[in-house]
Amino acid sequence: MAGEAGKPRTVLLATEKAFAKDAVTKIEGVFADAKYTLTRLENYKSKDELLTAVASVDAMIIRSDIVDSAVLEKAGKLKLCVRAGAGYDNIDLTACEKKGVVAMNTPGQNANAVAELVFGMMLVSARNNFDGSSGFELTGRSIAFYGFGAVARAVGKLAVGFGMKMYAYDPYIPKDKIAEMGATPVGTVADLFQYQYVSLHVPLTDE
Amino acid sequence: MAGEAGKPRTVLLATEKAFAKDAVTKIEGVFADAKYTLTRLENYKSKDELLTAVASVDAMIIRSDIVDSAVLEKAGKLKLCVRAGAGYDNIDLTACEKKGVVAMNTPGQNANAVAELVFGMMLVSARNNFDGSSGFELTGRSIAFYGFGAVARAVGKLAVGFGMKMYAYDPYIPKDKIAEMGATPVGTVADLFQYQYVSLHVPLTDE
Repeated sequence: MAGEAGKPRTVLLATEKAFAKDAVTKIEGVFADAKYTLTRLENYKSKDELLTAVASVDAMIIRSDIVDSAVLEKAGKLKLCVRAGAGYDNIDLTACEKKGVVAMNTPGQNANAVAELVFGMMLVSARNNFDGSSGFELTGRSIAFYGFGAVARAVGKLAVGFGMKMYAYDPYIPKDKIAEMGATPVGTVADLFQYQYVSLHVPLTDE
Repeated sequence: MAGEAGKPRTVLLATEKAFAKDAVTKIEGVFADAKYTLTRLENYKSKDELLTAVASVDAMIIRSDIVDSAVLEKAGKLKLCVRAGAGYDNIDLTACEKKGVVAMNTPGQNANAVAELVFGMMLVSARNNFDGSSGFELTGRSIAFYGFGAVARAVGKLAVGFGMKMYAYDPYIPKDKIAEMGATPVGTVADLFQYQYVSLHVPLTDE
């Protein structure tokens, strides 16, 4: 898509912890195709840098970066704030609404990356940080999910490969749906703790 | 099975690097049921300890422990030497044959344990030893096996879960068999090195 009525648009990529180089190259490609200007503020050290960078942008892409009323105050032209990831506890939604800024998240986009990290950590822990002592195998063990959204299901997909048994609790997903997706539904959060691994994949909300 | 004609039998568990505690408990159970005497020489520091321990045993269980002609010389009653694992380059087979000692290995028994370790190491490496910098995902990447026996196939089983593409070279397995087991057969060892990961699962033999 090109800018509305050919208007120039500027998008800020504000990442206190930068994306992988390949990802940034892809992002640059997308904006070049759209003839939008992309400005990058990566690995910044102080909030002042962010406050300066947002001043003239139409949209911004963030990770876990904090977008609060102070940032929104400085971002006079901002219309859109996209959070790469599922949780948006780092965005002040009330302040966004007051300023007419649309906030978006990208649930599920990094689910597999998280799932692989979960297994990396489980395997390293099972082998005592590779210290040469005897560890144990994951196969046949059980994993219980608190929340069975995109990330938990991606972890579950790998858990199947490892021959693990899966259990899940999610108040927003009917039990038969959980069963259909390959996990045994459990009735309460407490029930999860009888299994070897408990994996927590819930966004931080007031609830 | 009980001892031949009720004869008492002594089995030595000689492990320079001890098995996991659970495994030893299981081994003890098996020999208790069989009414065999099990003696344990674990985490030994010098070959002299091994040479002393083998003197009066009928059989021995080892891991990567070296059973050469010096050990066999001292083991006057030895009839059987079982190597937990696939490779038996640590056993002098010629000397065993001369002494009438049967040597056995246990191919495939620890295949899944090895496979999980392989993935643990691949994941840690992909994430730069968890140093906080950006890593990459294994999904969609390719893994090539030099040797497609029990261990490689166990690694392959996990690789499928990770959405990886598999390639294999094994001079002892027909190409259609390799394809049947889920990997694309390649013609030469050199061909393996065009893929992201090359996994070597071959016993050490003169060949």
